[in-house]
Order: sequence, then C-alpha cells, then structure tokens
Amino acid sequence: MENNLKVKPRTLSGFMELLPNDQILFNEMLKKIQESYEMFGFLPLDTPVIEMSEVLLAKAGGETEKQIYRFNKGDNDLALRFDLTVPLAKYVAQYYNDLVFPFRRFQIGKVYRGERPQKGRFREFYQCDIDIIGDGELSIINDAEIPSVIYTTFKSLGFDSFTICINNRKILNGLFEELNLASCSIDVMRIIDKIDKIGSQAVEKEMLELGVSVEALEKILEFISITGTNDEKISKLKNFKINNELFIKGVNELEQVVNGIRRFEVPESYFCIDLKIARGLDYYTGTVYETFLNEHKNIGSVCSGGRYDNLAEFYTDKQLPGVGISIGLTRLFYQLNEKNLINNCKKSIADILIIPMTEEIDSCLNIATKLRSFGIKTEVYFANKKMKAKMKYANKLQIPYVIIIGDEEISTGRLSLKNMITGEQSTLNFEEIIVKVKNG
Amino acid sequence: MENNLKVKPRTLSGFMELLPNDQILFNEMLKKIQESYEMFGFLPLDTPVIEMSEVLLAKAGGETEKQIYRFNKGDNDLALRFDLTVPLAKYVAQYYNDLVFPFRRFQIGKVYRGERPQKGRFREFYQCDIDIIGDGELSIINDAEIPSVIYTTFKSLGFDSFTICINNRKILNGLFEELNLASCSIDVMRIIDKIDKIGSQAVEKEMLELGVSVEALEKILEFISITGTNDEKISKLKNFKINNELFIKGVNELEQVVNGIRRFEVPESYFCIDLKIARGLDYYTGTVYETFLNEHKNIGSVCSGGRYDNLAEFYTDKQLPGVGISIGLTRLFYQLNEKNLINNCKKSIADILIIPMTEEIDSCLNIATKLRSFGIKTEVYFANKKMKAKMKYANKLQIPYVIIIGDEEISTGRLSLKNMITGEQSTLNFEEIIVKVKNG
Repeated sequence: MENNLKVKPRTLSGFMELLPNDQILFNEMLKKIQESYEMFGFLPLDTPVIEMSEVLLAKAGGETEKQIYRFNKGDNDLALRFDLTVPLAKYVAQYYNDLVFPFRRFQIGKVYRGERPQKGRFREFYQCDIDIIGDGELSIINDAEIPSVIYTTFKSLGFDSFTICINNRKILNGLFEELNLASCSIDVMRIIDKIDKIGSQAVEKEMLELGVSVEALEKILEFISITGTNDEKISKLKNFKINNELFIKGVNELEQVVNGIRRFEVPESYFCIDLKIARGLDYYTGTVYETFLNEHKNIGSVCSGGRYDNLAEFYTDKQLPGVGISIGLTRLFYQLNEKNLINNCKKSIADILIIPMTEEIDSCLNIATKLRSFGIKTEVYFANKKMKAKMKYANKLQIPYVIIIGDEEISTGRLSLKNMITGEQSTLNFEEIIVKVKNG
Repeated sequence: MENNLKVKPRTLSGFMELLPNDQILFNEMLKKIQESYEMFGFLPLDTPVIEMSEVLLAKAGGETEKQIYRFNKGDNDLALRFDLTVPLAKYVAQYYNDLVFPFRRFQIGKVYRGERPQKGRFREFYQCDIDIIGDGELSIINDAEIPSVIYTTFKSLGFDSFTICINNRKILNGLFEELNLASCSIDVMRIIDKIDKIGSQAVEKEMLELGVSVEALEKILEFISITGTNDEKISKLKNFKINNELFIKGVNELEQVVNGIRRFEVPESYFCIDLKIARGLDYYTGTVYETFLNEHKNIGSVCSGGRYDNLAEFYTDKQLPGVGISIGLTRLFYQLNEKNLINNCKKSIADILIIPMTEEIDSCLNIATKLRSFGIKTEVYFANKKMKAKMKYANKLQIPYVIIIGDEEISTGRLSLKNMITGEQSTLNFEEIIVKVKNG
C-alpha cells in the first residue's frame, strides 16, 4: 500500500487515551473505588451507553440537551448517556418489581458530553456513582453512611487530608423562601459562591443590583458568616432568628446527619458543615455533599452528591427517594496525575519479568507457571534481543523484579532475583522468591 | 405530574441490561478474565468508544460498514468502535515511539454493531482481547503462549472440559494455492465447514458445482480426513503429497506451536490440531485458534484469534506482526447463564448483612467497620421493617451470612452468625466470625 494512502492515526480531542504506565494508575484508582463501594455491599449495575432519546431526555433540557450525542440509526432516535443517574432512574422504574429496596447500587462507566474541549475537560469520561434508593421512604441514616463511604474510598486512594463538606438544601431553600428570594435563589447562590474570590463588598453590590433588599442581604450575610466547629454551627443555626418550617427541618436533618457520621466513625477532621454548598438547585432536596483535597482545593470537589426526593418521576408514579454521590474519575485522574498526586498505586502489571539466557526455555516457563500459581504476575521475555534491550524493557514497564535464568541457574535451582528499584541482586530458591516478592 | 405524561422506561433491543444477581456473575467472569490476562503481564488499554469515522473505517468495508453506528456531531463524522482491534492498530501506530515492544496489551470494553437483533446476539457487547505486537518481527513462541493464557482463563472461569483448536492459515492457503483454488478459497472453506452437518456426499456435490476439479476435490477430502493425535496429524501433514512452500512452512509452524504449547504445560487433552479452522480469511496469516466447551459445542467458539503479519498497515509503514485472541463476553455470558453453566463465581457482593434489633446502632456500625477492615464486605440494614422483610432482603441478595445484633449481643460481645445457605446459626465472638466467614 502506498504511503500517501495511509490514514493518520489520531484521537478525537476531549477524549482521554493513556499510555500503559498511566493506564495502570488509572485502573488502580478505578479498582480502589470499586472495592470501596463493594466493601459497603453496593450492587453492581451496567446499563447501555446508547438509549432511546425519548427515554434519556425525558427530564433534560437546556445545556444538557445541547451537549448530547444524538443520532438516528434506522428508525430510532438514539442518544449516548450523559450521566449515570438518568439510566439509574430508568432502570429502577423499569425493574421495580424485581428489585429489593433499599436498592444500593454502584455504577462505574463512561458518559458523554459534547462540551467545548478545554484542558482538563473531557467529552468522554468515567463516572463512579453510588446511590441508595428507597421505596416510598429512606431513613436519614443513609445520608450519614454516604460520607463514611467517601472517607473509606479516598483513604484507600491514598489521601490523608481531605474534607467532606456537608449542607442541607432545606436550610438554603427555607432561608430564601423566608426572604422572598425563592424565585432568584439560583442567582443569589451564584453570587454567594463567589465570596471567597471577590470579597463581601462586591457580593453586597451584586446582591443589591439583583434586587435583594437590604434587610434580606443582612440576613444572608449573617447566615453565611456562621462559623465554628460542626456543633457550634448547628447551635448557631438553631438560634438563627428565622421562623421557617423548611429551614428548621433542614437544620434538624443536618444535625442528625452530622451525629450519624460520627457514629460511622469518620474522624471529625474529615468532615464539616459548609452552609454555602448547594449543588444543582432543582435536583437535590436535602443533604448535599462536596469533597475537597485540603492541599489542592483548586481542583474543585472530587466527590459530590446529595439526597433527592424522587428519583424517577419522569418514568413512574412510585415515590423513590434516594441519596448518592459521584466521582468524576477521568477529570480527577487527569488533575492528580498532572500534579503527581497519585499515591498508593502499583505502577506495573507484572511483578516479575523472567529473562531466559539460554535456548532451553522450559525451566523458565515452568518457573513462570509456578509463580503464577502463587498469584505472582509473571511475564517471560521471549524476544531475541541483547541483554541491554531486555533490561530496558523491564525498566520501561517498571516491573519491580527480574529473574535471569541461564544454564547455571537451571542446574543449581538457585535463581538470581534483581530488584529493579534498588538494584539489589540476591540468589534465592523458589520459596524465598515467593516470600520476597509477596512482601516487597 | 400526570401519569399520562410519563415516559415508558425501556431498553433498546439488542442491548443487555442485567438484574443485580446476574450482573454480579457477569462482573465475576469479567474480573477472572482480566486477572488471568494480568497474570501473564499484559498491559491495560482503554481507547475511546467514539473515533473519527475516517480513522475507524480506514480498513472496513462491506458488512462491517453497514453495521456501524455512525453520526455527525458539529463538523465531525464520528463512529462507535465495532471491535478492539482497529483501535489497537490506531493506538500502536499513533504512539509507536512511546511503546516498548513486544507490546503486550489487554483491552476489555464495549463495542457496537447494529446487527439485526436476535436471541443471543447483541448490538452492544463486551470484548476481552489480548494481543502481542512485535516491532518488525515476533517470535513464534508467542503463538504457543496464547493457548496457555486461554487455558488459564477458562480454568479460572471454572471450566474443566474445553478444547483449544489450533490450525495454521498457511497450510490452508498453501493447499488452495497448489490446487489453483486460491480465488474461491472462501467458498471452498464454507462448504468444508458444513461437512459435519451435511455429510461428505453433499460436500462433494457442492464442490463440483463450484467448479472444483475431481482431482482437487480428492486432495481436499484427503486433507480434511487427516485424523489422529496431534503428533499423528503433524506426521501425516509432513507426508502429505504436496510440494507447496507455503503449505510446508505452515506445517512447520504448526509443529513448533504444538510443541511450544506443551512446554507451556497446557495438558494435551486441552488442545488439538483442527485443520478445518480458518477464521477470517483476509486477516490471519498464520496460527489460528478457536476454543470449544466440549459439552456445549453448539455455543460455538468461546475464544478465537490468531496470528497476523501486519496490524496497522492502514496507518503506518511500520511492519507490526501480532498474535491475539478475543472473548465475546456478553454473548458468552448470555449463553452460559441461560444454561446455568456459570460456576466458580460468588453470587453476592456483601459477605455479611448486619441486622440491628435495637435503636442503638452504634455497636452495629462499629462491628461493620471492623469487619470491613479485615476485608469482609459488610452491609448494615437500616430500614425500619419487620424481621421477615429483613431476612427476605438478605435472601434476595443471596448474602451468605447474617448477624443479628440486639441488646444481649451488645452486652455480652457474643454475636449470632447465621449461615443463610445451610440455616446453621452459631454464637461467636468477633475473631471467630472473621475466621468462619473468610473460610466459608
């Protein structure tokens, strides 16, 4: 085939494609997240990437709809899923009679949004979700369990310094209701959200421009300046002079959740009440969560979610309250990897590379099979290259141990194990190698 | 919202969506396949589901192109991947300078083909692939390693009776070349393939109708009637009266592969030469594999692949020979599950369900956290239901153990562990529970 007929191999912009060493790190993160979710008994779910547009877009509108990958195939109007929540809602409504409630499911999969590509933003990305769905009702103790899952997950990812921020949407909604700001609550929240960036004076100015009364503004500023320990915040909220039922209910729920989190043994330093957190205003109805890496707050929330009253109202009359969280793994991986913050993860697949030094490779194959039977991931290097090329292969793949097997090793049964990180070389028998590699 | 405004929740036909108990089995199979691939040091790869049509369809044509999910988004002509081989070819050509060869990669992911839906056929399905790609050359020992990966994988999936069938395309190609049948080799193969179904007389009739000479037909029938042990077949092939270079080279390669497989310690009863296996005629150039479950041959090949001379000729001038296999997991799972043939797989996520019998759930949470720290997947049942409903929950989820914790258990520290399969109930302390659950 002529060279000028070749197609240039390339990947669409906004689509992550990793080299093997990075892919190993990515998979390790994904595995730790899945294992953490499973540790709490969440059930796996896998739904199609493609759904009927009518089903997928039952609720959507605005920005979401514009970003959707939508197309026809035959007579079908199809779309790629843009999150894992809508497929969950569809699934629970569709299989309601076959499921046991509370239905605790995790789903890890790719979703698609045709956003304008920019650094750190992806059009295809992994979401790692858990949700607990009740049938008609769902105890608030579930809202307190979620942070213990977040805690376990990020600990297992190797992070020691992060904060799970908690709020309750009823508090905000009640406050805005009481101040007659319900209709512009989205704008108010947007302005409040900027206070750390633009300062309180600029916030005041924007609020007044929005038409917020001076009285209401004062109340809002008093509200967002509530500080202290978690218990102090609860106490101040209880004494906050506002006679709104929703607000009071929200404070009560928040108190139950905070006390619950403690019972789940999440250390106090890992969670805190943050009254500014709102999340999507039309979706969550109670507890909301955001999670920040304390030393890298600029990454934004690495795990968010909340409580909603009715998961599947577009598909069913059944009342299905739920609580859940999502980790946007592709973006998180990208940002952590850029900053070299991925710890606690192995860097290679193979534990051992066996390099045969003779034509007689039967012993090498036999040792490899035996090592594998002990759960040690073992690769044999077959290519007929110079020793230097063989060692370069082990180095590039970051394989931690190399065993070189020549005639002497075969006749004595003593093997030369090289630690590729320290350079240390030791002559060991098979059992000693097992112990060394398993402990190393 | 009015009932008649609801969208009916439904899944596209040809798209598999499982209930949790089946999804657990599916995931277990997927995990065992991945672990087997990793045990041999294959590196992970994850490529986008969406690619530019120009890139994805560089080679395609005919049936493949018709089945493709293809659409426009903005100015881009896009398509969903229909296998994992084309993305691999693209990837290796694109990142050639960053990869180390031989490049051993596995990829497990969903692919899309808009086939006419029928029972057991899917439009979205998982492929689980491994390939070993050489730079310019690739030793034939790799062709012998692949069956040992297949053997390890299907053993780990719990199968004890399967056969890896092996052939070499050079033998068939050489035979057809020598008989001047190269141009109609596809038709000849198709007819030969039916011999077990329609009998040799019908085969003869169809061959003659195709224009195959009586002489050539005799040679073909002689060829496909070669039987015996693997060594006997090799010996008969060596003595087969044909003076064709390609044929002789193919027999030589097949002999090397068969001897190689033995050195990889795959038992002789698990592989055999099958001279009728051809696979895709235009793609494979040497060794080819198909794998059959001996007691369920009607399922067809559960793992197929082979050797190819040039992976990425549509993207690069580099000569990249390779050898690989693929497991079509979605179809395989469907067929095995229908026949209740999925063994060796756990049926639940949680190992233990803790059922609190008092309002004071702190002890329950504490025990759950401790169990998890020992790697035991533990769920606490929070819903305020009758005991019967709680046990039904454990049963439906097939959780093997239940611990019921009331005031007495809390005060004595002795817990009541119920084995949900045997019904056996024992009173144990925490350490005894760990041992029991880990061993059970």
